[in-house]
Amino acid sequence: MSTYKLIELVGTSKVSYEDAINNAVKDAQKTLHDLKWLEVVELRGHIGEEGISEYQAKVKVAFKIVRE
Amino acid sequence: MSTYKLIELVGTSKVSYEDAINNAVKDAQKTLHDLKWLEVVELRGHIGEEGISEYQAKVKVAFKIVRE
Amino acid sequence: MSTYKLIELVGTSKVSYEDAINNAVKDAQKTLHDLKWLEVVELRGHIGEEGISEYQAKVKVAFKIVRE
Amino acid sequence: MSTYKLIELVGTSKVSYEDAINNAVKDAQKTLHDLKWLEVVELRGHIGEEGISEYQAKVKVAFKIVRE
Amino acid sequence: MSTYKLIELVGTSKVSYEDAINNAVKDAQKTLHDLKWLEVVELRGHIGEEGISEYQAKVKVAFKIVRE
Amino acid sequence: MSTYKLIELVGTSKVSYEDAINNAVKDAQKTLHDLKWLEVVELRGHIGEEGISEYQAKVKVAFKIVRE
Amino acid sequence: MSTYKLIELVGTSKVSYEDAINNAVKDAQKTLHDLKWLEVVELRGHIGEEGISEYQAKVKVAFKIVRE
Amino acid sequence: MSTYKLIELVGTSKVSYEDAINNAVKDAQKTLHDLKWLEVVELRGHIGEEGISEYQAKVKVAFKIVRE
Amino acid sequence: MSTYKLIELVGTSKVSYEDAINNAVKDAQKTLHDLKWLEVVELRGHIGEEGISEYQAKVKVAFKIVRE
Amino acid sequence: MSTYKLIELVGTSKVSYEDAINNAVKDAQKTLHDLKWLEVVELRGHIGEEGISEYQAKVKVAFKIVRE
Amino acid sequence: MSTYKLIELVGTSKVSYEDAINNAVKDAQKTLHDLKWLEVVELRGHIGEEGISEYQAKVKVAFKIVRE
Amino acid sequence: MSTYKLIELVGTSKVSYEDAINNAVKDAQKTLHDLKWLEVVELRGHIGEEGISEYQAKVKVAFKIVRE
Repeated sequence: MSTYKLIELVGTSKVSYEDAINNAVKDAQKTLHDLKWLEVVELRGHIGEEGISEYQAKVKVAFKIVRE
Repeated sequence: MSTYKLIELVGTSKVSYEDAINNAVKDAQKTLHDLKWLEVVELRGHIGEEGISEYQAKVKVAFKIVRE
Repeated sequence: MSTYKLIELVGTSKVSYEDAINNAVKDAQKTLHDLKWLEVVELRGHIGEEGISEYQAKVKVAFKIVRE
Repeated sequence: MSTYKLIELVGTSKVSYEDAINNAVKDAQKTLHDLKWLEVVELRGHIGEEGISEYQAKVKVAFKIVRE
Repeated sequence: MSTYKLIELVGTSKVSYEDAINNAVKDAQKTLHDLKWLEVVELRGHIGEEGISEYQAKVKVAFKIVRE
Repeated sequence: MSTYKLIELVGTSKVSYEDAINNAVKDAQKTLHDLKWLEVVELRGHIGEEGISEYQAKVKVAFKIVRE
Repeated sequence: MSTYKLIELVGTSKVSYEDAINNAVKDAQKTLHDLKWLEVVELRGHIGEEGISEYQAKVKVAFKIVRE
Repeated sequence: MSTYKLIELVGTSKVSYEDAINNAVKDAQKTLHDLKWLEVVELRGHIGEEGISEYQAKVKVAFKIVRE
Repeated sequence: MSTYKLIELVGTSKVSYEDAINNAVKDAQKTLHDLKWLEVVELRGHIGEEGISEYQAKVKVAFKIVRE
Repeated sequence: MSTYKLIELVGTSKVSYEDAINNAVKDAQKTLHDLKWLEVVELRGHIGEEGISEYQAKVKVAFKIVRE
Repeated sequence: MSTYKLIELVGTSKVSYEDAINNAVKDAQKTLHDLKWLEVVELRGHIGEEGISEYQAKVKVAFKIVRE
Repeated sequence: MSTYKLIELVGTSKVSYEDAINNAVKDAQKTLHDLKWLEVVELRGHIGEEGISEYQAKVKVAFKIVRE
């Protein structure tokens, strides 16, 4: 059976929380293979003069650690 | 005065968390009438090779229990 | 250095949680200047006959208190 | 040994939280036998012009599932 | 659609928690109109020689912010 | 300045949660002097055939430790 | 895509928490098909003269709701 | 009706968490009579060269306070 | 008996968390009289090239609302 | 292997939270030997006219119970 | 004095939660030396036709970072 | 827009919690550039014969992941 490692990321977006969550996953996939699941931990953001200027989504992503 | 019952569901979607939450509510409405409110409890998901492959939203939905 | 005050709001929308969160921020900006960040606290909603009829997002927004 | 099932209810009352909690239990007993214990989860309410107009108590009640 | 603001209060009473919660709501209604709902957050109290001398109930009350 | 010790109790009552909380405080006062404050931690109970048969209130009570 | 329903159970055992968790799942499987996952929520128990006399494990189990 | 007192312990074991929980209860029973129930609060441990060298289980145990 | 209002602030400091907490209280006292107590909610901060560049302490402060 | 008992204290200080935490530990050591570790649970305080007049730190301290 | 780093893992087992926790620790020890302690965060699992088919234990393990 | 990664550390000190938090940040900066913010998660410690012998601060520190 496998063991998984979780890492915690904060993805950001100028568009939406859905986009911020996806950005975190996409950036994780640039260096990590075999990502299996995600858990959304927290939603925050920066506010500018025109409303929310940066959506911030803290997520955990999990990937398999190879066990020989 | 009324009493309400809450049931806990996990709605899923290939598209977004907004869609996963709505799917949970729509599926609950197939068998339950008089749904009154929902509470979003948790957001998780599966990750595939192209990013998030399944959005999962744990929600509670509440409906009225008839009191004679 | 600055001190910030947080106020807690529930924004609503007929469309989505993203929209409800933005409505809370926009309404806060009508009377408060220099909003700096937000924290999403809770997502709830009302359900009508056609699914979710009101998306409700509890958020905290923070703004700077002037210190002379 | 027995297994128990918990269901989550919101009892309401025009009088008090004590009454709202009791109403949830009483309504549950109309259809469920052998209720064993309760856990109070949350207290909320509606406010009218004369103060609290509806006391709302979210409770979990547990009953035994028969195991042959 | 409306936006609501929540304020956090601690109501007190020499009599009971039910009374302390009601006192918080009543005092809020002296300056705020259109209170819509409350959430009970915490119950604490002072103890004197004859038992509980002050019941303290931390509650949040919500009211509508007018959106033109 | 003083240091306080907290002990955790579950008070019970056949009548109400208010009564269960008071019973915990009164029983603590039989052996402990100088109780200063209480914190209500949890509300549970047993259910009998006629509704709630035992109200259970978990509370913490604090008293001063003498520092010479 | 599917929607899942979670139900909350307390499994018991005279032997261990592992056994209590398994008993909850086994009893759920007597009436529910297609159980998919479980979440352990809380571990409690009764104590007798010889130590723990009843292990109690509160778990949530999830099963698929058919969506046509 | 009775009042109960809870005390918080950390039981340890070289073998397992089940054993650590039981050790806490057994040690409590050396000085306290009439232990009624336990609540498992937290599981931690020390790691040695060969894996987990000490299982640590934080538990609360409750016993009846005599009320004359 | 009195009712209290709590407001939530984030105090900041270049020196320490103790200082950040005190700054929040001092800034609140510039406009609010009769502050009675505080609750520390969260400790965060910014990091610069030389370590922590801004200590941030989220606190709630409470003051008495006059009841005629 | 050993079993540990935790007791919950509120230490106070006119100076700082660091001092309040240390005062709780020092007062515990007047009557308890072999204190092993502490856990900081909550930071509160009283506010006077000149800012914080009493720092209050709720801590748990653990000590070994002798097992023959 | 030392600084420690924590990583979050999900260990799995076909046998038990005790085994899943140990598997997470053993797999971590394949690449990390000087693991010092663990914290159990969450217990979940998959359910198959014959009961629990995969025990999943989310744990944090801590190891020393060398400070020259 | 950027994505950030959080890592969890326990900093220690013989002096104070402020120092333990700073030590965690300083040790992280030996290998990680562009640390942006920290979140204090937990305060614990060891107790020796003369009071607190090791202050332990669990913190999360965040740094930017380069996105090409």
